[in-house]
Amino acid sequence: MLSRLAKSNVLQQGRGLAQIANAEPNAPTIKTAIPGPKSLELKAQMDPVHQTTSVRFFVDYEKSFGNYVVDADGNQLLDVYTQISSLPLGYNHPDLVEVAATPRLITSLVSRPALGSFPRTDYGKGVEHSLTSIAPKGLKAVQTMLCGTSANENAIKTAFIWYQAQRRGGKGPDAAALESCMNQQKPGTPNLSVMGFQGAFHGRSLCMLSVTRSKAIHKVDIPALDWPIAKFPRYKYPLDKNVEYNNAQDKECLKDVEEKIAEWKKRDNDVAALIVEPIQAEGGDHYGSPQFFQGLRDITKKNGVVFIVDEVQTGGGGTGDIWAHDHWNLSSPPDIVTFSKKLLTGGYFYAEHLRVKEAYRIYNTWCGDPTKLLLLDKAIEVIKRDKLVEKSKLIGVEFQKNLAQLQAAHSSKLDQARGRGTFAAIDFPTSALRDKLVDTAIANGLHCGGCGDKSLRFRPSLVYEKRHLEQTFELLNKSLKQI
Amino acid sequence: MLSRLAKSNVLQQGRGLAQIANAEPNAPTIKTAIPGPKSLELKAQMDPVHQTTSVRFFVDYEKSFGNYVVDADGNQLLDVYTQISSLPLGYNHPDLVEVAATPRLITSLVSRPALGSFPRTDYGKGVEHSLTSIAPKGLKAVQTMLCGTSANENAIKTAFIWYQAQRRGGKGPDAAALESCMNQQKPGTPNLSVMGFQGAFHGRSLCMLSVTRSKAIHKVDIPALDWPIAKFPRYKYPLDKNVEYNNAQDKECLKDVEEKIAEWKKRDNDVAALIVEPIQAEGGDHYGSPQFFQGLRDITKKNGVVFIVDEVQTGGGGTGDIWAHDHWNLSSPPDIVTFSKKLLTGGYFYAEHLRVKEAYRIYNTWCGDPTKLLLLDKAIEVIKRDKLVEKSKLIGVEFQKNLAQLQAAHSSKLDQARGRGTFAAIDFPTSALRDKLVDTAIANGLHCGGCGDKSLRFRPSLVYEKRHLEQTFELLNKSLKQI
Repeated sequence: MLSRLAKSNVLQQGRGLAQIANAEPNAPTIKTAIPGPKSLELKAQMDPVHQTTSVRFFVDYEKSFGNYVVDADGNQLLDVYTQISSLPLGYNHPDLVEVAATPRLITSLVSRPALGSFPRTDYGKGVEHSLTSIAPKGLKAVQTMLCGTSANENAIKTAFIWYQAQRRGGKGPDAAALESCMNQQKPGTPNLSVMGFQGAFHGRSLCMLSVTRSKAIHKVDIPALDWPIAKFPRYKYPLDKNVEYNNAQDKECLKDVEEKIAEWKKRDNDVAALIVEPIQAEGGDHYGSPQFFQGLRDITKKNGVVFIVDEVQTGGGGTGDIWAHDHWNLSSPPDIVTFSKKLLTGGYFYAEHLRVKEAYRIYNTWCGDPTKLLLLDKAIEVIKRDKLVEKSKLIGVEFQKNLAQLQAAHSSKLDQARGRGTFAAIDFPTSALRDKLVDTAIANGLHCGGCGDKSLRFRPSLVYEKRHLEQTFELLNKSLKQI
Repeated sequence: MLSRLAKSNVLQQGRGLAQIANAEPNAPTIKTAIPGPKSLELKAQMDPVHQTTSVRFFVDYEKSFGNYVVDADGNQLLDVYTQISSLPLGYNHPDLVEVAATPRLITSLVSRPALGSFPRTDYGKGVEHSLTSIAPKGLKAVQTMLCGTSANENAIKTAFIWYQAQRRGGKGPDAAALESCMNQQKPGTPNLSVMGFQGAFHGRSLCMLSVTRSKAIHKVDIPALDWPIAKFPRYKYPLDKNVEYNNAQDKECLKDVEEKIAEWKKRDNDVAALIVEPIQAEGGDHYGSPQFFQGLRDITKKNGVVFIVDEVQTGGGGTGDIWAHDHWNLSSPPDIVTFSKKLLTGGYFYAEHLRVKEAYRIYNTWCGDPTKLLLLDKAIEVIKRDKLVEKSKLIGVEFQKNLAQLQAAHSSKLDQARGRGTFAAIDFPTSALRDKLVDTAIANGLHCGGCGDKSLRFRPSLVYEKRHLEQTFELLNKSLKQI
């Protein structure tokens, strides 16, 4: 059997590489409307067996490369949306293609471990070599999970477990707690809440929707928990011309946070954790200042509230740092930092005092996926080797300059240019005009996406270079003239 | 670059195949205590960076094959636990190894799509060829997800969305609903509940823990929703000698279900969905009769409650059918059937009337993982080609006979032998004795696992044959004599 396989695999592998693109086009090529006839045909075929309500177009992933996505109809688009900000190295990066054919990866795929109980022999070393090497300042231990939502869910469970242990003088659950929780009675089943923010997005599981306030269509018809939602700053740009207004925003929001923590305590529904994004991405790219986040760190510390920073969309280098919260210069690190998307595996870093001592409390069948860790390990190696975060920071400065110029040139249509690194956004007067720009840009060969009510967001990968930037703004300029 | 890669990949692939086991040992080989010194060393190394509280031992996945798992110390164990019932074809099945090296799989790995918006061109066909080909009777459309928990979460969201649409005469959310849900007020944010059962397990996300009642350590310290929990039958075995008692169990439990649906309606917290496992696996392998489930189908239909069957652990062939609910002969199919584990991708089948019309309501970044679908596609091909479900059904009959004989031979230690196919369990007088048997069996080379308080569960893969069965009972017999 081995020789049959070896032969067939070697052949396949040879064919495989020839089938996978290995160079970028010089510029977009548009052959059809998007979605084109082939995409529409595939959509009609798929719809009876798997819903397609949110499908924009079908992608030929074998033909896509680097910053260019190729759709089912052969249209080649420059991609600054990158699978909702989830491709660290663009499409089909040769180093990742290479790692995909290694025996470690193949066995991880076909003999998937229940990682919490029977990890691979190389899992600990893999975690150390990849995730630990980029751990946020002050944090060391990490828990892998499958996606951003499960990372947030388990971060919050960790906070609840810690909060209740504190109430018991640091001890694990006693007999009374274990017995009462099976009937969902106190003391085993406590009233506890999590604070979120207006405009936030932390996932779409039933509970995460209680702290998610980005769009009504995500929340409607789903029952919710009585958890507090605080105000999040809404700044005016450019920042240096709106200092007073923006400082007042910070103050007002921090006051709201303090008041709501007190209010929920009075209701016997203590805030055990506060979860916040460094940049509210899905909600419309809303930023908080370092002072605002330092204020949150102070308030959570004072009140014994676990401070969770959700870096699912911001983590991984797009902001010019691996972690967007790096530039806050906090007096003490966040208690938990969650991640997914560009970091390929989901998971969260946590402070040592939050470590759960008892087995099977933070657990599920998979606890992540070793194939994602192996890819991440290689991606981090490439990011360091090719200095991609540093490069992204430099190109980010250019990006912001160009975005400001674009706004100046189209001041009746654009407002609030903002960003950090290549993680950037700009606002339109209405949702309809924003949507029209997205459609027009796609038709011109630039794949971008919206966020919030009327914002356009940019999420290029870390292999985005000067020539891509020039093309991006050329296509934006052209598209803006057309709408 | 292509030629460098092609060469290195071909070499790697050759090396890779040589490194991946391709034959089973004839019998277990035990060299050390388990966990052995190497596992203990790896655990100590990993613990500072990633918690290891529930790690049993580390596995050398390259050396494992078929029904045999090889640990870090070179111990070769016959595995009837299979990564918590999650390997359909055992370890490193050659057909899966082969598919792992194809360009479709490689690009799916390294250029991961946001499936809900930009699916691969082959995704619809892949769904049809794999999942649709094994769809439960009466259901056609399927939604892929990442894991069993996210499948259950989204099945329940689907139920809530449908329930509220019914209240609006079949219409989608109106302006009043969309506006109020952002403040979590009625009508947009309704009171709705989900009915679960005592002993059930549906996952460990915050909300799923409200319908999970298998073990206190999973639930303690986590806040919960006011959702009803009904009684689930607890039968006496053998079934043919306890007909009256078992029928009374069914009746009592169905009465409880009806009463609680009425009670929660009175509380203005309607039961929108009922979720139930065909066999309560994690909770201790508790079975319901076809009559019981037919009763549930009738009650849910009468009350407009969405009937969700959670086949995350039972689906995939181990019970002698692809779906454990197949043999209930329901008068009408379940509304939703969820799956994961042995089916490699998570997801759920749903009845057409439940299809969500609006985009982005059932959605997340990944909506599954195309690498899992490609593996499943091949696995289903192999299962059909090699008639593995039929074979598993036959070997299952033998398994149940042997289990009954084992119980008769060790009647002071064993009770309640039960099962369907090779999905089987037996009870011990105490947790302590069960745990001792698991440890002893592992020390003798049989990897099995517990469930519930004092049950031992068997979850062989579909490549489990007569010789493995003989070894299993030899090792069990030996181990029982030693405890």
